[in-house]
Amino acid sequence: MEALDYHAEERRKAEFDVDEMKIVWAGSRKAYEISDRVARLVASDPVFRKDSRTMLSRKELFKDTLKKAAHAWKRIIELRLSEEEATKLRFFVDQPVFTDLHFGMFIPAIKGSGSEEQKAKWLPMAYKMQIIGCYAQTELGHGSNVQGLETTATFDPQTDEFVIHSPTLTSRKWWPGGLGKVSTHAVVYARLIADGQDHGVHGFIVQLRSLDDHLPLPGITVGDIGMKFGSGAYNSMDNGVLKFDHVRIPRDQMLMGVSQITREGKYMESDVPRQLVYGTMVYVRQTIVASASSALSRAVCIATRYSAVRRQFGSQNGGPETQVIDYKTQQNRLFPLLASAYAFRFVGDWLKWLYTDVTQRLQANDFSTLPEVHACTAGLKSITTSATADAIEECRKLCGGHGYLSSSGLPELFAVYVPACTYEGDNVVLLLQVGRFLVKTVSQLGSGKKPVGTIAYMGRAEHLSQCRCEVQRVYDWLKTHVIVEAFEARAARMAVACAKNLNKFPNQEDGFAELSADLAEAAVAHCQLIVVSKFIEKLQQDIPGKGVKRQLEILCNVYALSLLHKHLGDFVATGCITPEQGALANEQLRQLYSQVRPNAITLVDAFNYTDHYLGSVLGRYDGNVYPKLYEEAWKDPLNETVVPDGYHKYIRPILKQHIRVARL
Amino acid sequence: MEALDYHAEERRKAEFDVDEMKIVWAGSRKAYEISDRVARLVASDPVFRKDSRTMLSRKELFKDTLKKAAHAWKRIIELRLSEEEATKLRFFVDQPVFTDLHFGMFIPAIKGSGSEEQKAKWLPMAYKMQIIGCYAQTELGHGSNVQGLETTATFDPQTDEFVIHSPTLTSRKWWPGGLGKVSTHAVVYARLIADGQDHGVHGFIVQLRSLDDHLPLPGITVGDIGMKFGSGAYNSMDNGVLKFDHVRIPRDQMLMGVSQITREGKYMESDVPRQLVYGTMVYVRQTIVASASSALSRAVCIATRYSAVRRQFGSQNGGPETQVIDYKTQQNRLFPLLASAYAFRFVGDWLKWLYTDVTQRLQANDFSTLPEVHACTAGLKSITTSATADAIEECRKLCGGHGYLSSSGLPELFAVYVPACTYEGDNVVLLLQVGRFLVKTVSQLGSGKKPVGTIAYMGRAEHLSQCRCEVQRVYDWLKTHVIVEAFEARAARMAVACAKNLNKFPNQEDGFAELSADLAEAAVAHCQLIVVSKFIEKLQQDIPGKGVKRQLEILCNVYALSLLHKHLGDFVATGCITPEQGALANEQLRQLYSQVRPNAITLVDAFNYTDHYLGSVLGRYDGNVYPKLYEEAWKDPLNETVVPDGYHKYIRPILKQHIRVARL
Repeated sequence: MEALDYHAEERRKAEFDVDEMKIVWAGSRKAYEISDRVARLVASDPVFRKDSRTMLSRKELFKDTLKKAAHAWKRIIELRLSEEEATKLRFFVDQPVFTDLHFGMFIPAIKGSGSEEQKAKWLPMAYKMQIIGCYAQTELGHGSNVQGLETTATFDPQTDEFVIHSPTLTSRKWWPGGLGKVSTHAVVYARLIADGQDHGVHGFIVQLRSLDDHLPLPGITVGDIGMKFGSGAYNSMDNGVLKFDHVRIPRDQMLMGVSQITREGKYMESDVPRQLVYGTMVYVRQTIVASASSALSRAVCIATRYSAVRRQFGSQNGGPETQVIDYKTQQNRLFPLLASAYAFRFVGDWLKWLYTDVTQRLQANDFSTLPEVHACTAGLKSITTSATADAIEECRKLCGGHGYLSSSGLPELFAVYVPACTYEGDNVVLLLQVGRFLVKTVSQLGSGKKPVGTIAYMGRAEHLSQCRCEVQRVYDWLKTHVIVEAFEARAARMAVACAKNLNKFPNQEDGFAELSADLAEAAVAHCQLIVVSKFIEKLQQDIPGKGVKRQLEILCNVYALSLLHKHLGDFVATGCITPEQGALANEQLRQLYSQVRPNAITLVDAFNYTDHYLGSVLGRYDGNVYPKLYEEAWKDPLNETVVPDGYHKYIRPILKQHIRVARL
Repeated sequence: MEALDYHAEERRKAEFDVDEMKIVWAGSRKAYEISDRVARLVASDPVFRKDSRTMLSRKELFKDTLKKAAHAWKRIIELRLSEEEATKLRFFVDQPVFTDLHFGMFIPAIKGSGSEEQKAKWLPMAYKMQIIGCYAQTELGHGSNVQGLETTATFDPQTDEFVIHSPTLTSRKWWPGGLGKVSTHAVVYARLIADGQDHGVHGFIVQLRSLDDHLPLPGITVGDIGMKFGSGAYNSMDNGVLKFDHVRIPRDQMLMGVSQITREGKYMESDVPRQLVYGTMVYVRQTIVASASSALSRAVCIATRYSAVRRQFGSQNGGPETQVIDYKTQQNRLFPLLASAYAFRFVGDWLKWLYTDVTQRLQANDFSTLPEVHACTAGLKSITTSATADAIEECRKLCGGHGYLSSSGLPELFAVYVPACTYEGDNVVLLLQVGRFLVKTVSQLGSGKKPVGTIAYMGRAEHLSQCRCEVQRVYDWLKTHVIVEAFEARAARMAVACAKNLNKFPNQEDGFAELSADLAEAAVAHCQLIVVSKFIEKLQQDIPGKGVKRQLEILCNVYALSLLHKHLGDFVATGCITPEQGALANEQLRQLYSQVRPNAITLVDAFNYTDHYLGSVLGRYDGNVYPKLYEEAWKDPLNETVVPDGYHKYIRPILKQHIRVARL
């Protein structure tokens, strides 16, 4: 018997080789094979089932999460999984949990800032999970501004110890994941006070709980900070609050890779360049961009498949209604998001290369590319996470009313994803950093310092300020050099305009404050150019597989032209293109949608997501949506009884008009 | 002892009379007094407490909701509240519940479509809540397209009954609020089959549950459709699924106000004009626009107050950091939303007038304004709900990380609000209806038919297609005629362009399909013009109170100029303004922000929301945020024990390296 597949006909329409596209998406054949194998492993394991997750109470959800984390660890050991495989397994388990922070922040913090002896002592314990750690930086009153942290670590030369203390309410650690109920240790960021001097914020390894009975150590108050956005979602994580009352730790638990306190209490900087920490930052932001493409592709996969199932209007002679994916308004909202998923995937891959490159340079004491790399990673983190958060919600709306059901998977995906816009640098704060970098680059243009990397185009600012777009017909918008020049001209002109306007202010900081919104817009233009450029560079590579490259070219054009339409004001107001050229771009975009349409289902199949990972009745691979929605409904706890709990006390007295005398 | 008020200094800065502004916001002194009194009544009643709502399981939440509904009904009776007061009370209880649909949809459906005898029979029972009803229209496979419903009501002349039946899986009723567990009756929409003919969709009153024991009647399967977006939020509502298996109802339970079936099974239309139903539609959409301003103002109130509490960066000489509300990037995101809240409030007030006007006309058989009124209400429903949904999420982001906590109130506000973008007409579908109306208006311009009401400006399309914006200096953008003409010119030019492009298509329906995205954009331009115009008209009235009118003028300009900046592409590409004029508008906007700043806190105080209704630790009236956040955290169920449930089974085996042999 053939398996049910409502999308079979859609899949037959595809004009490209989906197996080859899966490899492009995964990055390599090996990456594809690992991902595919681990995804199936997780999907077939009953412990990792997640379909009732949104119905659990906080305590049930948390316990279920602990169970999954322990089971994941057990499977990783039993199957002797590699680090890459283990990471994939945790990814597909798809439930935020303390191990994310233990492996993702605690260990990297020690690796990045510990001395060799400290690494030798702590890392083996951490890798084996004999201790579980978290990353305790943010405080109740302090998020973005790390230099404003209030927790103190005062060196006591009498006992050769640090005294960790929370001097105020706002100094209490707040938000660290894994802190609330699980972590035995933390890397705590605190102001180092030694010799009566404040040496700024440093990291300290602090034990929080007894390894015998898990009780907090003396002087430590620790707990969970409470419910967060959504049902399920991040409520599986014990984001925590932590208060120190003069907690003493040995001197050698300050992370001493970069600076030290001597036995006498003297503060000393090491000769290791501070810039090395930027390598870690590039790494973390690269993973965030990669996660953006994962979350976005997941939402797009659900919305695309359901758009082919759902039918509304357009019935002729009593025949079936039209699939909503055939409506241009649906395509106009959905296909740019599909294109963005691929665009973010490729720019994420490129960031992996950038990480290798910058690491090698830093090791060779070459810090020349750092400002550019910093601006580029900050900006890409900002625009990809903002676009992804908006896109998930748009995909939910694209599913109509049913997208509002938890069983669609989209509400939880949104709730669990949106913190990415805030953590590791608030997206607006990051854009302002990019904006400052751009105007600085402009101001140095005359000085002979040549801009490099992603900002190299600014070296042609003079040309870009005057160039005219050559588009005369619709299909001219398919030429990559035309697209690149339009995006370069827009970014350059916006940055130059900001620089000029800044010069009108006697005090430059006042100017930055006043023009910050303009700077942020210029930063967006710069970062969108990077994404477009990296997509185009990807297409200049050899890409095997029937029709694969062709599909990617179409998506690349959809990505660029939909951005151009969305930001038409930028392009036209700076004179980069004329209104007529803008209208032609729009016309080209509509034609491209028609080319995407027959391939849409297969383009989301290429993400290779299991139904387990997708976690969506609407996004099922086989398209068998309505029977399953109906089945799911009956699982709700409210359906355990036909007459609801509360009927006799609260409904019947109303109906029987006994409400006046009822004791409710 | 003076009450604690961290915002006292902010409140002293205000340049206007907040008490007078409260009356402007409420609409009248009487409306203000009722609202204020009822809000305090609800806030002071312990049964209506909602602070633990997001922590409850589905069943607990639902029972708590039934309790509140019964208590609300009891208080309404005990205090002999008027209909206006009762509606306000339910509004401030702020928890979606079956009575919303009973009073908001079931009763109006009978009033709107029932015959006089039917109203006389059913309405008294419904008003007294001897029966509880819901509105069963949408089906599992059918939402927007009401004409596509599949449920059948087949007349059986043998027994003088209708047989209500669900012939397919997709025909099962799906989504109606109050249906799942509570309603005893429903107005069911079904295809009327009589004499072997399908007479289209009609409404029928169907009893679902026994009034004795609340069990479903024979042939009826009914249940809840399961969890929806968020914790708390709409999960307090029993949105339901309903299947009919040949359920028989008497003939006189078809709603016969507009058409009837005779005893012989003959279908007859009455002489009552069908257009009368549009009156109800205007009424419903007016309430939706009013709700948009409520939800938006609530989010803005929270974000504004917390932006004055929260400080980040900018500390000088160890002093406090800068209040984030002083940053231009924060103002640039927040103040347009504040202005939108007022704008939507006033356009909602105007829609109340429009409802009265159209009702009087309909009663006088004057249907001339209907197409314009339909387009205007459809469009305003669409743009105000979309803008509000986006704005709530933006307000959440404006609160930084803490906005992600349930105790901020914003996640639940978002989750509970977003369905407004989908129900009562999907927002994109509505925009397309407006778009069609616009191009039709353009095509009739030569015919001597003069456009009226909100579309009257189109009568000057020729002038608007050529006019040039007179702005030469920053302050020229404060002139209302300049703003109105720019918005009129933009809307007219976009509509005319759509009409021209449509004419290029041999088949007009193909053109509508292909150009639908452009039509939707033209519709947005038209609707934004309406909101701007109604705000300006409001300011032409006499508005008492020191500085009140001045503040509203500032907000009106912020609203208009921020839209102009956001849609700069429209204005510049259509030649309505030059890029230089766009830059001047932006400069003016920044100056306006500085004028809003000292009044911001008081402008949100004018909404007169109690802390109970706001439901946000971040938005507290007294600004005492951090101690209360800390307190709230400890209430989470996870904090009932220091060592979490699951430690011995799932954490300790990992730490003790016993995981290999553990039975998890």
